[in-house]
Parts: sequence; C-alpha cells; structure tokens
Amino acid sequence: MRLSKLYMPTLREAPADAEIASHKLLLRGAFIRKSASGVYTYLPLGYKVVRKVEEITRQEMDNAGSQEILMSAIQPKEIWEQSGRWEKFGPEMFKLQDRHNRDFCLGPTAEEYFTTLIKDEVKSYKQLPLNLYQIQTKYRDEKRPRFGINRAREFTMKDGYSFDTNSKTMEESYMNMYCAYEKIFDRLRLDYKIVQGDNGAMGGSQSHEFIALSETGEGVIAYSESGKYAATTEKAEVKYVLPEKEEKLEMQEVNTPGTTTIEAVSEFLNVSKNKCLKAIDLMVEEKPVFVFIPGDRELNMAKLIGFLGVAEHSIEMMSDEEIISLGSRPGFTGPVGISEDARIIVDKNITEIDNLVVGANKEDAHIKNVNYGRDFEAEICDDLLEVQVGDIIPETGEEYKFARGIEVGNIFQLGTKYSSTIGAKYLDENGKDQLIWMGSYGVGVTRSVSAIVEQNYDEYGIIWPMTVAPYHVIVTVVNAKNEEQLALGEEIYNALQKEGIEVLLDDRKERAGVKFNDRDLIGIPLRITVGKMAMDKIVEYSTRKERVNEEVSAQDAINRAIETVKEELK
Amino acid sequence: MRLSKLYMPTLREAPADAEIASHKLLLRGAFIRKSASGVYTYLPLGYKVVRKVEEITRQEMDNAGSQEILMSAIQPKEIWEQSGRWEKFGPEMFKLQDRHNRDFCLGPTAEEYFTTLIKDEVKSYKQLPLNLYQIQTKYRDEKRPRFGINRAREFTMKDGYSFDTNSKTMEESYMNMYCAYEKIFDRLRLDYKIVQGDNGAMGGSQSHEFIALSETGEGVIAYSESGKYAATTEKAEVKYVLPEKEEKLEMQEVNTPGTTTIEAVSEFLNVSKNKCLKAIDLMVEEKPVFVFIPGDRELNMAKLIGFLGVAEHSIEMMSDEEIISLGSRPGFTGPVGISEDARIIVDKNITEIDNLVVGANKEDAHIKNVNYGRDFEAEICDDLLEVQVGDIIPETGEEYKFARGIEVGNIFQLGTKYSSTIGAKYLDENGKDQLIWMGSYGVGVTRSVSAIVEQNYDEYGIIWPMTVAPYHVIVTVVNAKNEEQLALGEEIYNALQKEGIEVLLDDRKERAGVKFNDRDLIGIPLRITVGKMAMDKIVEYSTRKERVNEEVSAQDAINRAIETVKEELK
Repeated sequence: MRLSKLYMPTLREAPADAEIASHKLLLRGAFIRKSASGVYTYLPLGYKVVRKVEEITRQEMDNAGSQEILMSAIQPKEIWEQSGRWEKFGPEMFKLQDRHNRDFCLGPTAEEYFTTLIKDEVKSYKQLPLNLYQIQTKYRDEKRPRFGINRAREFTMKDGYSFDTNSKTMEESYMNMYCAYEKIFDRLRLDYKIVQGDNGAMGGSQSHEFIALSETGEGVIAYSESGKYAATTEKAEVKYVLPEKEEKLEMQEVNTPGTTTIEAVSEFLNVSKNKCLKAIDLMVEEKPVFVFIPGDRELNMAKLIGFLGVAEHSIEMMSDEEIISLGSRPGFTGPVGISEDARIIVDKNITEIDNLVVGANKEDAHIKNVNYGRDFEAEICDDLLEVQVGDIIPETGEEYKFARGIEVGNIFQLGTKYSSTIGAKYLDENGKDQLIWMGSYGVGVTRSVSAIVEQNYDEYGIIWPMTVAPYHVIVTVVNAKNEEQLALGEEIYNALQKEGIEVLLDDRKERAGVKFNDRDLIGIPLRITVGKMAMDKIVEYSTRKERVNEEVSAQDAINRAIETVKEELK
Repeated sequence: MRLSKLYMPTLREAPADAEIASHKLLLRGAFIRKSASGVYTYLPLGYKVVRKVEEITRQEMDNAGSQEILMSAIQPKEIWEQSGRWEKFGPEMFKLQDRHNRDFCLGPTAEEYFTTLIKDEVKSYKQLPLNLYQIQTKYRDEKRPRFGINRAREFTMKDGYSFDTNSKTMEESYMNMYCAYEKIFDRLRLDYKIVQGDNGAMGGSQSHEFIALSETGEGVIAYSESGKYAATTEKAEVKYVLPEKEEKLEMQEVNTPGTTTIEAVSEFLNVSKNKCLKAIDLMVEEKPVFVFIPGDRELNMAKLIGFLGVAEHSIEMMSDEEIISLGSRPGFTGPVGISEDARIIVDKNITEIDNLVVGANKEDAHIKNVNYGRDFEAEICDDLLEVQVGDIIPETGEEYKFARGIEVGNIFQLGTKYSSTIGAKYLDENGKDQLIWMGSYGVGVTRSVSAIVEQNYDEYGIIWPMTVAPYHVIVTVVNAKNEEQLALGEEIYNALQKEGIEVLLDDRKERAGVKFNDRDLIGIPLRITVGKMAMDKIVEYSTRKERVNEEVSAQDAINRAIETVKEELK
C-alpha cells in the first residue's frame, strides 16, 4: 500500500477524554475513531490489526477442533427468559423491539442462544463432544465506557461453547480450550497470566481468566511468586488470622457518641479493629440485607454476589431512611435486636471472634462483648473478604502478590446450568435422556488490540508485534520528488511484496520529519529509509523498537526484512 | 474436514414455511437455521460459503483501490436527522435506546455515517478521491421477511462510498465500481444483468442494479433483446401510445350505476379504456392526493414516490370516509370539482387525451368529454406508468422483454445530497470550500449466497460453483468399517489437502445411501468415491453437476481433482 493513497488521518494530539496510552495512540495513529460514547470505527490500519487478531484466533480454534458458525447479533427475548438472564443482565443489555413489538436484545454473549441452537439437533451421544464458536460483534451497555476499545459498548468477541456427555469430558474440552487460548495469546505476543476466575453472571463451577498484565488494567490479580497460584482478587481466597481466643464476657451497652466508623469506635473504646464488627447495609432486589465482617477487612462484593446468586445491578446501598425504618441507626447497625424483616449474613470468621463490639441500633451506642451463637445468629458465608496486602495464600503458604491487568480471555465450566433450564438433552448409550455438559469460552478480540498496545509502546508511538502489525515493513522515501529515491523505494517495495511481505511505501510529498513521526506513531516493526544515498543503492535499516539506523545495501535491507518477518511470524 | 466431526445436521424435509429452492436447500443441507422471523444462523458449511463471498468481494474492492474499514452497527440518531432519513426510513429501521435514553438505530445502510466520518478529516482536494468500504451486518425490519436469507432482517452487506471533488471524477469512481462489481459477480458465477435503477431512498441521479436472474426473484427487469437497454420496471420509461385525436365535445354528466371499475365504466358507456380516467386516491404523509392516469394502465408507485420525494411508508390508500369527506365517492373520483384541499397529479399523457370519461364525484355518475386544460388542471408528472407487455423501449425502438431476478448489488451516484446536508466540504486548489461528490455501492453478501443457490441446484440438492463451494472435493468412503477403504480414503484426503485443496472426508459409519444423499444435497463440486475396488486402488470420480461415476485409479482421481479445482478457480 502506498501512503499517498492510504486513508490515515493521523493526529498530533489525542482528544482530552483519551486517558490511557492505547486509547491515545490508536486515535492519534488513525487506527480508530470514536462514533459515540463507547462506540468506535476502525480505520484501514486499525481494521487490519483487528482482522489479524481474528485470524490468529480462528486458526487456533480450528486447530483445536472447534467449528466456526455465525449467529445473529439480535436475539429473541424468549431464549433469555428461559435462563432467567433477561432480567438478571440488567441495564448492561441493549434491548429493542421490532415493528411487531417483539422483544429482542443485542447479544452480550450467547450461552442461551447456542444451547437453543443445538437443543433440537443434537440428539445422540454419538454427536458429542461438539465445539462451536463465532467471531462476532457483541454489545454491552456499560455504565462507564472508557479507555477506547478497551471497554466499549460495541466490540468484537470470539465466543465459543463446548457440549459434552459428562463432567469428565467437559473438563477435557475445557483443558483443550485452555491450551488453545495459551496459543492464541502467545501468538498475540501478550504478556499474560492465567488466573482462577469468578464465575459471576455465567454460573457454573471452574473458570479461568487470561489477564494481559498492564498498569492501566481494570482487573487486579493476586498471585504467588512461585507461580503456583493466581486468581482474580474477586476470587482469591482469604485465610483470615483470627484474634486470640478470650473468655466470653457479658454483653454491655456503651455510649459511643459520633463513632460511625470502625476507626472511630476502635479508638474511642480502645479495642482493636478486628474485634469490631463492620456492617454493610444493603438492599438486594429491593429487600434489606445486613452483612457483617471483621472490622479490619473490606467486603468482597463478587463473593457476596456469588453467595446470594443475584445480579450485580440488583444490589444497592441502603438509604438512611431504610435503616431507620428497620429499627436501626446509620453508622450504628448491629446484629443484636435488628429487625427480623432483614436478612443477616456474616463472614464465617465472625463466628470465631470473642467479645465483639457491635452497633447497638441506637444513635451513639454500641454493645461490647457480643458473641455469635450466644447473642445472635445469622446466615454464614465461608468467605466474604477482599484479599489484601500481607495475606497468605491458603494453597501455597506464600504471601499474595498483586498485579493489574486487562481481561482478554475467559473460560468457564458451565456444567448443566444452561442445558437444564433450556432442556438440551441427548440420548445416552442406554437410550436414556441426559443433560448436556457445557463450557463457554471468550476472547476479547478488539480488547486484545488495546492490550497489545498497552504492552507495546514508547514515547514515539506504538510498537506492533510482527504477528498483528498492520504492515510488516515501511519503506520511507525521504524526498519523494527525487526520482532516484522514489525509484529505489519502489524497487524495494516491489521486491518485498513479491515475497509476500506486507509493505507500506511512504511516497508522500511531505517533509521527512512528518514521515518519520508518522512511522514511529503507527508502529510498523521494520523500516527501510531511502534517502540521499539512493544513487549508490544504500539505504537505512532499522526496527521500530530500537530506532537505530544502520546503513546497508538495498539488497541487504530486503534480505534482512524478509528473514526477520519470517522469523518473527513463527 | 472429516464428516464424522463436522456439525452438519442435514434434514430430510424442509420446514413448511420455506417457499423457494434456495431457502429449502440451505436449511436441508445444514447451511442455515432460522432463529426468528428473518433472522438466521450460519452453520459451519453455510458460514464457509459466506466467508468466500466476502473474500471475493474484499479482493475485488481492494484491487479497485477501495480501503476496508469497519464502522459500528449501532448508529446515533443525530447523524440520520441531518439527512432527514431518521423519519423517512420508517418502520424498516430498527431503533433502540441506550441506558441514558439516547437514540440509536441498527444501521440499514451508512451514507450518513461515512459522510460524517470523513467530514472532519478530509480537508483538502489532495486527499481526494477516496473510496472506503466495509463488510458488515446490516438491519432492515422488513414488513415481510421471506425466502430465508434472500430477504432477511439481519444480513451481511458490503457497503462502500466514494468521495470526489467534482461530478466528473465521481462518474469515474462510479465506473470503477461498476467494473469491480462485474468482476465480483463474475467470480460468484452468477448469471446477472446490469440494469438502470430507481434511486429511491438513496437520492442522487444515476444508478444501476446488478440483478441475478431467477424466476423466484422479487424484482422484475425490463430489457431489450439487443442488450442495449435494461432497467428495473420501477425505472423503465413508458412511451404511451395515445388514442387518436378527436374534436373536443361538451362535458356531459351521465348516470353509470355500479361502475366503480374502469372495466365496468368502459363497457357500460361503450368507451375504450384508454379514454377513461383511472383514479388512485391516496393519503401521502396524511394529506390527500388524487392521481390520474390512462384507464388502460397501472400506476408505477416508484415513479410517483420519486415525483413526490416522500418515503414509501408515508403513502397509504385513502379510506372511503376520507374520499367522502373530500366531496367525492369511492369508485367515482374525478378531477372536475374535487376538493381544493387535495393535491391532484396527472400522468402527462392525460393532458393529450380528448374527451375523457371521468368520475363525477357522485354515486353512480361519470362525466363524459372532459378535457385537460379546459375542464380541469393539475400537477403534471412526465411518466407515472408501469411498463407492460407490448410497450416499446423509447431508446431503441424494440419491444420490452421481461425477466425476474434478485437484486444482489446496486451502485448510486449520490452527487452532493449527503455532503450538503451533513456539511462535508473540502478546500479546492484556490482555497475555496466545495461540497464533496459521493457515490454509494452495495453488495448483498448473504443474499448473493441465496441467489447462487437459486441458479445452481437440481432435484438432488445444491450444485455449488467452485469459487464459493464450502469444500472443493468430497471423498466418500462407502464402508467406513472397511479398513482398506478407509485407508485409501485417508490417503486421497491427505494428498489433496497437501495441494491446498479443501476436502471433506465422509468417514461416517452410515449407510452408503445416506452418504450419497448428503453429498448431493450439500453440493460439493467434485466427488471421489472409495468403495469395494479400494484394494486395487480404483475409485469413482464424478462431478456434482453430472453425477456420472467414472472408474479411475486413485492417483488419476487426485490429479483430475487438483487440475479441475485450479481451472475452475481461475
């Protein structure tokens, strides 16, 4: 492609709302343009990168025995109602009606849809296992779309689904996808960690997330130095260190004016924070729920959601009025004598701590020496705590380390969650109806593009890995009005194209500075500069990463480019 | 691909609502599945065909210098309001709101969107001409989705747009696309005609449609035997043969009981039909419009819409009550003395016919000897008539011939219609603001798939052209339990794959009849059958089209298949 023809409107400055490097550089380098909040257009260079990520994903899915199909982006309401997710997905789901007022959504994912597809056509165990995928536009009406194509409302996702006769082969299908995902993200040249995930809205048991490490990532992972353990902080288990056992004393109400925080009450009563009960007052699906955890910890909302089995958007903080109407006071909520209309849930560790200080459900009052079992009872959840610095990994005994990252892939063992609600069954060898065992597998195609940029840029622009670069080589003719330079540029351009190398020829009649800045910005991995020494067939060769020019003969430059491209595509 | 692994749930019978061959065969052959009215899923074989059509389209667009991008499928309301099409598109446009109640549509096309994209970034004549395209999912909420993927509500379309500095280069860009389209449809092996089109909702001047000939097509084209002329019947010009001139007589009201049709009044008064005035009573954008044409002809609605410049969905038939409220009577509408609140439009030929018989706007009454100019006046439209058998082509003097077909492509000269409403301008060589001249170009990707099937099938199933076949060759192992047969089948399968041939291996443990029926149904162009003569390395070779088996050596079969595939892909 000739740059004189390429539609590449690069920008000197990124718009003010672009916060992170990938967002800024993809805009500046004319890879993407914003059409609306969280909605983007891919310009020629950007779409080439997207297609390369798609193609790598496709190849590895095909190699793993999965088969590509394409379902519609609009999905009928009925199939979502069967699983209960029509309501559960909440405002993240774009909904619409057709001219006959029939309800549809723009698919945010497709567990229900794939299950419905195979439901009537997979009849026998002989047709299983089966693995299908699609590379398709997906929709999530994010509360806060941000970071460009990192968290967009319309995006490209590979979603795939496995169908098996039993849990054991489901696990094999899952491991098969696990390995395929490693190959995909390796070929995308991402630096990533595979971590145990939270199953969240997907349901099912085991899951893993593929997290591209990046300081700008919205996800936090907790892992062990040894590499033996890694999980999202949503999932990471907390082994809480209990305060020492004491003799249980008698309850005593104390006046504690203005102590509406754990810090305040701990200081006022001179009691360590881990002996104070932290209350989180919530409305869940519009019903009151009081959650109590040790005062020195934070609530892990994902764990609570998993325990309750509700949708994230159905949880809100309780208002002061609601707290009062339940016979308590904001800042002084406690489990003793609270309204029986509310659900009370405690982190399991609470049952092991003696002589707790708890809110007295009165203004400016707490109760000391409260003990679980003797003074109150509640629903017990094994682990409601957010992991924190200093915690020990239960499985390995090491201290947790933390890192930020971008979730580019996830895999879930769904079990029979969807097949049971939708009724997807097969006949086993004995002619008996059995539920199909499923897995679901996602790759964020467009999000991977932003993750690749987050890991591959410098002060001058993007540095694309060869495997996803929009072009492999850029040939810059320093002075395109000079016939000798242009002729040699064309010669190199043609020679490389003949070898199947994807080449850009910068034949624009622009100043050299403009051309050099553009090529740094758009990040083509290899560069050949044709300048004044063109008459002697001498050019400059450099990589985008090193940016160090080396004088070589045109033929050497061609040979080196071909060799490097082939090497790096391996 | 091994058929034992391929997800290919073929059906013995097509569902009852499948009316035409392509719909039936694509369902039966497991290419597509219906998800909702007008909404389809592409199964593995079907998606392979779609991707081949996409790839041929992509290659020819790239060769023609167009550049691929990808815009979002959801488009903000604002850009459609600028062109006035937010309302004009009517119920065919899927509309939705996001969580902040902002309005979007699912793009049915993207003239406004592309114009908006380049508006701020194409600033100088130096950046023009420019040609951009995308292959993307489009949405039209059809009143009557039918014929499977032929008229679907979610479908894949290639839409492209050219941007030029003036009308002359716009025409060059248009011709460039015209030629690219010929190459695309030639490579899709379609039998098609290029016809002058009606610009309809797109606006602009010149347009052409690419019509794949098919008896099941919903479009009718009118053309000349010589090949010099072809147009859609919506567009085809009518040279009406006027009745002979007569002396103008005096108006006379006559009693014509029950003559509410042209046939009835013509017979009752013994006046030829072409002297009777045919009335079409309409509500257009909720305002009354009476249209009058010669009694022996039909109204061409597209021509009327073009004359009125309104949206198709804004036109309805007038109710009896409305006719009466305007001082007329149903079946007796005439232009003399009709309410001045209504618009009156006549076909130009009406002004040339002497002594017309017209409705008297009274029950059971007509007026004889009515003459335009003397007795009434109206807005005159040059041509409102539908072409019919026996009409002469004005340009060539030949008689019109008619054929049915499926519109698979269209190209439009848009001029400055969209650039003027959206304000897309460039600076010319003198630094003056000028409007950009545009063209728009569509290929129905998924519709082409159905058109290909309509032209390529027999009583046994589909006969794919090599260029779009999901696989080139199918190797059928007659008895997959026989080791020798299976081994030879595998050998041929591997040998062909090594040469880059796309091969299916039917290694299923099914009866031979099932396998033969399936391979006929799914229409793989070349077939190699490995049966009892496997021990002598003898196989049967046949084409899907001929279905005549020939005994040849395995090696000969391989060689012939390779040669034929290469030849037919040229």
